[in-house]
Amino acid sequence: MRMRFKRWLVGRPLRNEKLHEEKFNVFWGLPILASDALSSVAYASEEMLLVLVAVGMLAYSQLTYISVGIIGLVILLIFSYIQTIQTYPNGGGAYIVAKENLGVLAGVTAGAALSVDYILTVAVSVSSGVAQLVSAFPSLAPYTVLICLILIALLMIGNLRGIKESAKLFSLPAYAFIIAVVSMLIAGFFKFQVGERITPPTLASLEPISLFILLKAFSNGCSALTGIEAVSNAVPSFKEPSVKNARTVMLLLGGLVILLFGGVSFLSFLYPVLPGFEGKTVFVQIASHIFGNSPMFYYVMGSSVLILLMAANTAYSGFPLLVSVIANDGYAPRQFSMRGDRLSFSNGIIAMSICSALLIMVFNANVSHLIGLYAIGVFISFTLSQAGMFMKWMRSKETNWRWKAALNGFGAFVTGIVVVIIAFAKFEEGAWIVVLIVPLCIYLMLKVKKHYSAIAKQLRVEDEDIQKINITEQHYVNRVIVPIQSINAASIRALRYARTISENVVAFNVSIDEEERRKIERKFHMLNTDIRLIVKYSPYRKVVSPLLRFIKSNEYNYEKGEVITVILPQFVVRKWWHSILHNHSRLFIQRELLKHKHIVVATMPLQLKDDEIIIK
Amino acid sequence: MRMRFKRWLVGRPLRNEKLHEEKFNVFWGLPILASDALSSVAYASEEMLLVLVAVGMLAYSQLTYISVGIIGLVILLIFSYIQTIQTYPNGGGAYIVAKENLGVLAGVTAGAALSVDYILTVAVSVSSGVAQLVSAFPSLAPYTVLICLILIALLMIGNLRGIKESAKLFSLPAYAFIIAVVSMLIAGFFKFQVGERITPPTLASLEPISLFILLKAFSNGCSALTGIEAVSNAVPSFKEPSVKNARTVMLLLGGLVILLFGGVSFLSFLYPVLPGFEGKTVFVQIASHIFGNSPMFYYVMGSSVLILLMAANTAYSGFPLLVSVIANDGYAPRQFSMRGDRLSFSNGIIAMSICSALLIMVFNANVSHLIGLYAIGVFISFTLSQAGMFMKWMRSKETNWRWKAALNGFGAFVTGIVVVIIAFAKFEEGAWIVVLIVPLCIYLMLKVKKHYSAIAKQLRVEDEDIQKINITEQHYVNRVIVPIQSINAASIRALRYARTISENVVAFNVSIDEEERRKIERKFHMLNTDIRLIVKYSPYRKVVSPLLRFIKSNEYNYEKGEVITVILPQFVVRKWWHSILHNHSRLFIQRELLKHKHIVVATMPLQLKDDEIIIK
Repeated sequence: MRMRFKRWLVGRPLRNEKLHEEKFNVFWGLPILASDALSSVAYASEEMLLVLVAVGMLAYSQLTYISVGIIGLVILLIFSYIQTIQTYPNGGGAYIVAKENLGVLAGVTAGAALSVDYILTVAVSVSSGVAQLVSAFPSLAPYTVLICLILIALLMIGNLRGIKESAKLFSLPAYAFIIAVVSMLIAGFFKFQVGERITPPTLASLEPISLFILLKAFSNGCSALTGIEAVSNAVPSFKEPSVKNARTVMLLLGGLVILLFGGVSFLSFLYPVLPGFEGKTVFVQIASHIFGNSPMFYYVMGSSVLILLMAANTAYSGFPLLVSVIANDGYAPRQFSMRGDRLSFSNGIIAMSICSALLIMVFNANVSHLIGLYAIGVFISFTLSQAGMFMKWMRSKETNWRWKAALNGFGAFVTGIVVVIIAFAKFEEGAWIVVLIVPLCIYLMLKVKKHYSAIAKQLRVEDEDIQKINITEQHYVNRVIVPIQSINAASIRALRYARTISENVVAFNVSIDEEERRKIERKFHMLNTDIRLIVKYSPYRKVVSPLLRFIKSNEYNYEKGEVITVILPQFVVRKWWHSILHNHSRLFIQRELLKHKHIVVATMPLQLKDDEIIIK
Repeated sequence: MRMRFKRWLVGRPLRNEKLHEEKFNVFWGLPILASDALSSVAYASEEMLLVLVAVGMLAYSQLTYISVGIIGLVILLIFSYIQTIQTYPNGGGAYIVAKENLGVLAGVTAGAALSVDYILTVAVSVSSGVAQLVSAFPSLAPYTVLICLILIALLMIGNLRGIKESAKLFSLPAYAFIIAVVSMLIAGFFKFQVGERITPPTLASLEPISLFILLKAFSNGCSALTGIEAVSNAVPSFKEPSVKNARTVMLLLGGLVILLFGGVSFLSFLYPVLPGFEGKTVFVQIASHIFGNSPMFYYVMGSSVLILLMAANTAYSGFPLLVSVIANDGYAPRQFSMRGDRLSFSNGIIAMSICSALLIMVFNANVSHLIGLYAIGVFISFTLSQAGMFMKWMRSKETNWRWKAALNGFGAFVTGIVVVIIAFAKFEEGAWIVVLIVPLCIYLMLKVKKHYSAIAKQLRVEDEDIQKINITEQHYVNRVIVPIQSINAASIRALRYARTISENVVAFNVSIDEEERRKIERKFHMLNTDIRLIVKYSPYRKVVSPLLRFIKSNEYNYEKGEVITVILPQFVVRKWWHSILHNHSRLFIQRELLKHKHIVVATMPLQLKDDEIIIK
């Protein structure tokens, strides 16, 4: 039944051949790779305003200057990344570029930082999507966190099913959103031109404008840049000529980010809005200023919610893939590199869902609180990736290397400064968490690698040693112990099996009192076998320690080098919930016994039906 | 390390002999068994008022009448239960009394209802304790749920450690609370007499008083009666003469409940208080009216928080014990009947903690919301227990049976009516959840029993059959398959072991391509053994289905009746977190193979160190 539920939830297993995905051209690739970067339009301006509002009316003019700075950053990154695309046609994620050119530590750092940011992308995008929804339908407000969790669950299930198949369907929200925002920009500017001014809300100057506040606003604005690296990871997913297509998409993406983000920031300057006013997001306030309560308003709302979900979905394909590459290199637990039934990296998908759901619960789905942790990770990976490219040019000295190195070097320099700015300006707002977690991840990743390497070394046997090994010769005697609780179908089956694998079999029983002991001895005697029965006393029927004591005792006469096989029956039940009712002490016994290298545990399945007898 | 953490958390394992607890006399027994019943003083009156307040000023006089009704119920229950104590000197929990006299279904019903109520006792008591705390220190308000969860975690750890040892220490809060409330009563009446009246808050009559509202208030007041059955469960824990001591404690407990509950209800009539006024509990409001901000106020507060925690702690000893008795009878999963390292029923304790923590999270630690679910369970068990006693007298017809039957019969009748009242009056407030969950529990308990019985039947072998069985004769041939991924220390060890248990050994490899196949064949050839190597192709190295296909194939030539042993190495790691890095595919393979009754899985431990070589 558990199986059937799983099937219903994630679908039938897929064959490996299905792995070859459809490749996309410019028209379909753009929206899929752009949703992360574009969707931040729905919260980036607001989070900047939220900081600036503290200084009162001046805020709205400052917003414009900061937005211009961020647009400059976009342009720089676009051209820097185009160089990455051309150099890494097989996909140049920050992890790979940094590892290849700057060494393992840089690669692992980029990987850790990016992983953290992917998880935050899900948390921020889903929270912001629900915030837009709640702004439009305030009666949903009490259920904000719940709705977020349901959406994450749906994203998880969708991705476990292997959601990529319907990539074209997923492109529509991005185009719908682009059309929505562009219409809003046009209508907004027009309305403003024809003189329909809205009185700006009066704001007292609460504190003097300071550099710190400007940097904080700038840091929040940087969240608009997350996701811009997506194209460079995805070069091999493009149709041929893939490099050229990817470059075109990168340029278009840059243009769109500038248009939408700059446009929305400028609209919040034209239509002075107040973050959090009436519990509505700035984006909703602007849309409602411009479109009132018309269908267009709901269209804008709907498309923004959808593109935010698409952004979360982008992270859902990015994170598991990144972690699987890291796991393949031995820096993360191996199970992250295994594909599930539906060929998706199920473990990565589940881990990501749990982490982002926890973040949403801890931060109460509050975008402003989550944004404190956001963007720093992605800028760390920008810096490392650009620095890696810079080193590459410095070493290769190929045609035009000076120009190329200058561009990537400048990119690394600027994004590095942004990392410092974000860490400094948002340290108290939560950046400190990331500043702690990224090194912790790096530490763990290096430990994992060390462990896997140590094991590989221990397991390795050189060719000359293989030839010296003699398997056929018997190196030791196999002894068998069959723990039995009573003479029943299971113990008889185990004793029979024991007989086929060894001449030296002992049945072992733990009784709680003298009466029980007599009873089992009497019944065992009836079996009329030469197998010895050992009975030990232990209240509460603890098995492991009496058994281990017996093995060590002179009575058993164990000799070093011999292997002892202990046979434990395991109930195999038909209904999944029946497994709750069995095998718990068995698992415990097995775990304890396997701590001894001379003990092998043989698990004997015991099929249970509802009304059938197991042996005759 | 996980082991060490566990040791630190729950302490060293205890020897079985430690199980004999200290028995208590009247003076120490009273406070331990009374805390559940007495602590409800801190919320019962408030929850009654909360309902009555809707009808305005009339509320406060109604409160007195309802309290008198509840006091009558207390007296009836005390005398009914004294009969149970005398008849069941070995402890007469509702489960046992109902099962013995009314049959399995009644027993299981009482057990399920009581279990649900134990869990609610924890949730309500902890929530109310924290509500008192937050009333006194309002700055803690945002952390209400968190504090509740921390307290539940502490209760869980304490009980896993086997908290009973310090029973005397635990009696102090109850006495401290009794002294606190009695002083409050004296001071309160005195202050009232000398004429210091407080103007009652003016309340508009919002709706006419109705029978429904009175019944709802009465139902909430019934929460004061939960825990009154504790004494009858604990008779064997008293010093001799245990029955007499238990009866004395029962009488004292009844007197105290009447004094404290009646007194506090009357105080809320004298000092008109408003539930929820300034976010303070009624109990805190009364205490602050009477004692102002003096040390006495904080003493009352502190003792009420402590006794509420003691009440939760009482449930922590009641629930695991009850469930262990039920599990011993086969109506609950067996692991509930096993004692942990510290001789406490760890699984019951953990299950209870999880359930009550979930309740607190879902209901946001709101006592008024939780109270809707409360009390109905305990009244179901009251009814069944009294009805069981009634049947007992009707059957035994011993001296004075008419009087005894009349008392218990009347008790059953009255508490049965209360069940109906609560179910009816609080249906919408949450009683419906309990009305659904109790039958669900009963259904599951019966299913569990059915399953265990079916299994016992399948495993049973009659004596005459035992004699017919011949174990010594070999019934089948044992074949061995050793799945190997490469020729390494682990696979060589497995092949050697395989050799000792069978002559028919096959090595089985899954390769992802032709090149891999050639490599493993070359290396295997070097081993120079007569063991056959089978190589199958599977991308992503899925092992199970190629292996099962191979077993079924003509190539393997498996004959019905033979047993196949598959040897799987298991990494045994030193550091607990290393286990995350291993054995996951092994567990999956084992689970799939064991679905086939002719396959035994032998698990071979592979000790991994950081720098040592496993085999020579």
